[in-house]
Amino acid sequence: MSRRIKVAAAQLGGVTNAMSIDNKASRKMVLDRMVALLNDAADRGCDLVVFPEFALIPVFVRFHVARLEQFDHFYEQSMPSENTQRLFDTARERGIGFSLGYAELVEEEGRIRRFNTMILVDRSGDITLKYRKVHLPGSAAPVSDDPFQNLEKYYFEVGNLGFPVAEFNSCKIGICICNDRRWPETYRMLRLKGAELILLGYSSPVHNPREDQSPELRNFHNLLCMQSGAYQNSCFVVGAAKAGIEDGVELIAGSSIINPYGEILAIAKSSDDELIVAECDMAECEPGRKEEFNFNTTRRPELYGALVEPH
Amino acid sequence: MSRRIKVAAAQLGGVTNAMSIDNKASRKMVLDRMVALLNDAADRGCDLVVFPEFALIPVFVRFHVARLEQFDHFYEQSMPSENTQRLFDTARERGIGFSLGYAELVEEEGRIRRFNTMILVDRSGDITLKYRKVHLPGSAAPVSDDPFQNLEKYYFEVGNLGFPVAEFNSCKIGICICNDRRWPETYRMLRLKGAELILLGYSSPVHNPREDQSPELRNFHNLLCMQSGAYQNSCFVVGAAKAGIEDGVELIAGSSIINPYGEILAIAKSSDDELIVAECDMAECEPGRKEEFNFNTTRRPELYGALVEPH
Repeated sequence: MSRRIKVAAAQLGGVTNAMSIDNKASRKMVLDRMVALLNDAADRGCDLVVFPEFALIPVFVRFHVARLEQFDHFYEQSMPSENTQRLFDTARERGIGFSLGYAELVEEEGRIRRFNTMILVDRSGDITLKYRKVHLPGSAAPVSDDPFQNLEKYYFEVGNLGFPVAEFNSCKIGICICNDRRWPETYRMLRLKGAELILLGYSSPVHNPREDQSPELRNFHNLLCMQSGAYQNSCFVVGAAKAGIEDGVELIAGSSIINPYGEILAIAKSSDDELIVAECDMAECEPGRKEEFNFNTTRRPELYGALVEPH
Repeated sequence: MSRRIKVAAAQLGGVTNAMSIDNKASRKMVLDRMVALLNDAADRGCDLVVFPEFALIPVFVRFHVARLEQFDHFYEQSMPSENTQRLFDTARERGIGFSLGYAELVEEEGRIRRFNTMILVDRSGDITLKYRKVHLPGSAAPVSDDPFQNLEKYYFEVGNLGFPVAEFNSCKIGICICNDRRWPETYRMLRLKGAELILLGYSSPVHNPREDQSPELRNFHNLLCMQSGAYQNSCFVVGAAKAGIEDGVELIAGSSIINPYGEILAIAKSSDDELIVAECDMAECEPGRKEEFNFNTTRRPELYGALVEPH
């Protein structure tokens, strides 16, 4: 049986300013843009559309507020939520799946918890996979001299759902979020769970204020991680960027669809809303898994003990 | 204190035919070439020269012989050996270190054992580090339709020394060999042991008879693995290739010196004997280790259990 997914990465340009936001109006504008991209993808025969991390909102982790609750309007407290229902409705109407990154607020274990989350929604509008970001970048407290913050460790807990995998079109799908893509453990964990296609949403500043790296170097790292992750794990990677400029901060674009040989099948040309599309045939995962990266014959987990030792 | 190593990768062109070899004459010719490269590197003020995997001999794993012992003339039974003494002498005379890949035959645990091995030799001609290849590619038995074989799993045991690290010029050095470079676990294990500069010897066919990949794609994978390994582990990688044509088999060249940002500092332009040189300042490992790849704050070994589970 042929197992294929025609997949789209829906790159988004910037969302409006986080500190002066009219949350309700901004949400509607963003949702209009996302529904348009979802319809466009359906028109082009896609099975699945990947939206970025923080798709619905500005990347508020750039700013510090004294109490976490001051930013709770950026979080979704249910899914679908009032803010996202139209996406789910469109998916069901058009028979198309989507993946969405959002800030999640839940009551779990008797307390309020906040996660950086991404879900997979099937053609019926049902959530079939949820992942909570493990590799939170940045700091847990403001860094005084930086021109903008990256306070993910302040606003979120480390994901507690592991690296789950679910089926879509009889293909095995995994999810990771932004900084996860720089850590080879992410792809490896997903591959070990059987993932053939990894959905990635990201929203990374072009200039990292904590490191002196050129935009060219930062863009190179973005592709390097996605391409090596795909090649070394014999899987497809679909990276969808929040791009453009937000709150004066320029974001890495370069949304890409990459095959199991690490080759770029499609890459965004703009820094704005843009759909890129490629047909992914899971049969292309097989040669690598049978030969060069045959885990059964060549990988040596018994020699990797240090990988799981506490630092 | 400034911790720097001026390092060279000594790429080698092909060695003479494995099946019709005059072992003694061939060894002398190869050693002449290697001593010339070592002297050249010393003249250029290098601290350390990296030679490829199977530097002294043709890559005999392409051929099948019924009894392993028929190929024992390709193995070193001591180190330094008669075949390599001149390298050690030159290193001591010139005050330069080197790293050498070779087939190793030893009696251990009461039996003859064969490993694919690489060592680090310091400026005094002393061996300070030994690594035995973990990720053996290819098969344990001949594959009948292939134009040439890759019988590493037949000729060698999986390395039993782990992923050791040693000091050179007050810098922490690790070693890996050929196919090891495609496995992110290799770099990660070395990084966790503190490696700042990873020495890599390789000898890979341009055409892998078990996979249908273009020379361009194979060369891309070679760089992709070295560059992502360097970047994701904030370390230098020095890859030295056995290049050229051996036994009618064309080998991947592209010997490279790569910095902790994954940038290529030097890359070989030929497929023949060629020295490439770069100065590596270990201070360049620090920004990545403090920020983007700060293991203490961002890596999550407690969530990576599957990485060490048996397949």
